[in-house]
Amino acid sequence: MDLSKKKCKPCEGGIAPLDHEEVSEYIKYIRDDWKATENHKLSKDYSFVNYKHTMDFVNKVADLAEEEGHHPVMHVYYGKVIIELWTHAIRGLSENDFILASKIDKL
Amino acid sequence: MDLSKKKCKPCEGGIAPLDHEEVSEYIKYIRDDWKATENHKLSKDYSFVNYKHTMDFVNKVADLAEEEGHHPVMHVYYGKVIIELWTHAIRGLSENDFILASKIDKL
Repeated sequence: MDLSKKKCKPCEGGIAPLDHEEVSEYIKYIRDDWKATENHKLSKDYSFVNYKHTMDFVNKVADLAEEEGHHPVMHVYYGKVIIELWTHAIRGLSENDFILASKIDKL
Repeated sequence: MDLSKKKCKPCEGGIAPLDHEEVSEYIKYIRDDWKATENHKLSKDYSFVNYKHTMDFVNKVADLAEEEGHHPVMHVYYGKVIIELWTHAIRGLSENDFILASKIDKL
């Protein structure tokens, strides 16, 4: 399944977050350096040689987030960005998070 | 004292971080919504109406950081940015942090 070809769908709640089994299935389709924390958050660290490269990545992720209507949290250091993904409206993970993870990895 | 008129100086260690008394003095010269945590970090939350405004601010801070050669940590949410400032090389606060805080407030 190529999640990067899918598009995030608006999510305003009313659905259950993915359970442990579903998270275990979806996580196979993104790179194995993404971590799922207690089934409710995906996170990954990215390293860069300097601040310019760091900010270039941050802006690409921000543009993608606006296109998809789904916004990760970014913790921005001099040469590192930690991306965190979850679906606010359902307080857990949805397919959207895995779609965005897949697309971020292709930036 | 208008800290925003000063310029950050390169700091590669070898000096002591500011002590409690010095932090209490410097903090008078930046806006009072900056918090100093245990004298070793300055932090402030900024709120925005949408992601575009959030990212505009993030990029202005990043440009300023490059000009000053002093880079804050930024925690970037949909409509909020938390800025954290400290001087890595001395594991605490230096005048640079207050200069940058003052300049960020003028963006």
